[in-house]
Amino acid sequence: MLTNIGSDRVRSVRALSRRAVREREGLFLAEGPQAVREVVRHRPEAIQDLYFDPSADTRHAELIAAAQAAGVSAREVSPEVLAAMCDTKVPQGIVAVCRPVDIDLDAVLAMRPRLLVILANVRDPGNAGTVIRSADAAGADAVLVSDSSVDIYNPKVVRSSVGSLFHLPIVTGVPVPLLLDRVRGAGVTLLAADGSGPRVLGDVDLSGPHAWVMGNEAWGLESGVPEACDGVVRVPIYGKAESLNLAMAATVCLYASAAMQRNGPTVG
Amino acid sequence: MLTNIGSDRVRSVRALSRRAVREREGLFLAEGPQAVREVVRHRPEAIQDLYFDPSADTRHAELIAAAQAAGVSAREVSPEVLAAMCDTKVPQGIVAVCRPVDIDLDAVLAMRPRLLVILANVRDPGNAGTVIRSADAAGADAVLVSDSSVDIYNPKVVRSSVGSLFHLPIVTGVPVPLLLDRVRGAGVTLLAADGSGPRVLGDVDLSGPHAWVMGNEAWGLESGVPEACDGVVRVPIYGKAESLNLAMAATVCLYASAAMQRNGPTVG
Repeated sequence: MLTNIGSDRVRSVRALSRRAVREREGLFLAEGPQAVREVVRHRPEAIQDLYFDPSADTRHAELIAAAQAAGVSAREVSPEVLAAMCDTKVPQGIVAVCRPVDIDLDAVLAMRPRLLVILANVRDPGNAGTVIRSADAAGADAVLVSDSSVDIYNPKVVRSSVGSLFHLPIVTGVPVPLLLDRVRGAGVTLLAADGSGPRVLGDVDLSGPHAWVMGNEAWGLESGVPEACDGVVRVPIYGKAESLNLAMAATVCLYASAAMQRNGPTVG
Repeated sequence: MLTNIGSDRVRSVRALSRRAVREREGLFLAEGPQAVREVVRHRPEAIQDLYFDPSADTRHAELIAAAQAAGVSAREVSPEVLAAMCDTKVPQGIVAVCRPVDIDLDAVLAMRPRLLVILANVRDPGNAGTVIRSADAAGADAVLVSDSSVDIYNPKVVRSSVGSLFHLPIVTGVPVPLLLDRVRGAGVTLLAADGSGPRVLGDVDLSGPHAWVMGNEAWGLESGVPEACDGVVRVPIYGKAESLNLAMAATVCLYASAAMQRNGPTVG
């Protein structure tokens, strides 16, 4: 059992909370049993190392066995070492050091996607993770994250995606104009979501292949994006609220798309 | 200008971050220009005192003038006093001490509501505030908060409701069984939202008066609640996500209700 919280290994895992280190090392952390379970289930080849403490040895015995069965090397560490490795205050006894899981834009477009989400300058980790979770729940084919958006391997994004990061294809690092251009070139209609959009969600035909383009949570869509899209669509506000937050708006749009693509159009 | 951060007044405002004090004093805090703007606009009679610092005197001059025009006494305080009064680290120069804005269940039922949300044991302040905001956005008639749920005057609820706390009627302090009984007795169909529900959102007739019953974020609906409702409905999960979070599920349900009540049913 590893017990030295000052070891190079512990320090190098802990350093993965910093984006520069994640990018240099090509590694990130999946913390806690839920994230670890999903990466073991869906992307075991992405796991470089798995660490667990004695509490997890009993509480998460099945998970550790499943990881080992998938060829993952799992090492027991003291609770102090585990806490020193993690960004969360309560890592719940288990953490996986993972290699990036994102894939190429070409690979996504080759799948002939019917429902996509594009994060164009989404900066808040909780919003990004929640939208990835919603996209997964609504059955979207992929999430495309611009180079100007938050790093999807930020521990808060990983946490708020609740495992969805490992469930559906995610593309990262592409500039917004190139993302829009390539997606549109693949025959996918671009719909920007914006509270000031001229079109209302319920009136838009969502039956064909399309992508929801979500802008920044504070200042919305950047200059040039609405013009590069086929339409700017607002979620209707029926009460006195000024807006929905980004994650809620994305969820409503994605579920409207899923309902129309799977069940046919709304009447009225 | 008040400058003594150790004064009784400052201490008594600061103490409103504690539920017991809020309940004893019958007061709570609306922090920051957005919350203050909404309470000034929609419920000025609820404001007991308004405090602002010299930065707000210029940045929020119109808001302060509007408050004064509505009969609110507004007092300038030093930035240190304002910070000492608040729960937020960055109160942005303005805060209002308010009296409760919730109303009686009888008054809500007398309005013959068509769309309600019932929070049955929702404990997380961010979730409660976000659901209140969604309910407002979707045009719900009221939000009914059980006595076992989080206090809606918790600073985090006020903040995450982004002003919606002052936009639509909110009932508090009623036990879940009584809430369900009274709402149902008023001819409102009770639909519990739960990921394990036998009915799927898209298949449920939402055209009549109904209430969405949201359970606890961790353990769902408490024993007896599904049985007391007319149906238990799940938001469909099309991908590999295990669930949506409470606020997202509530938002999708509420928008489905709004779409059906306002535009007619979905085909297929």
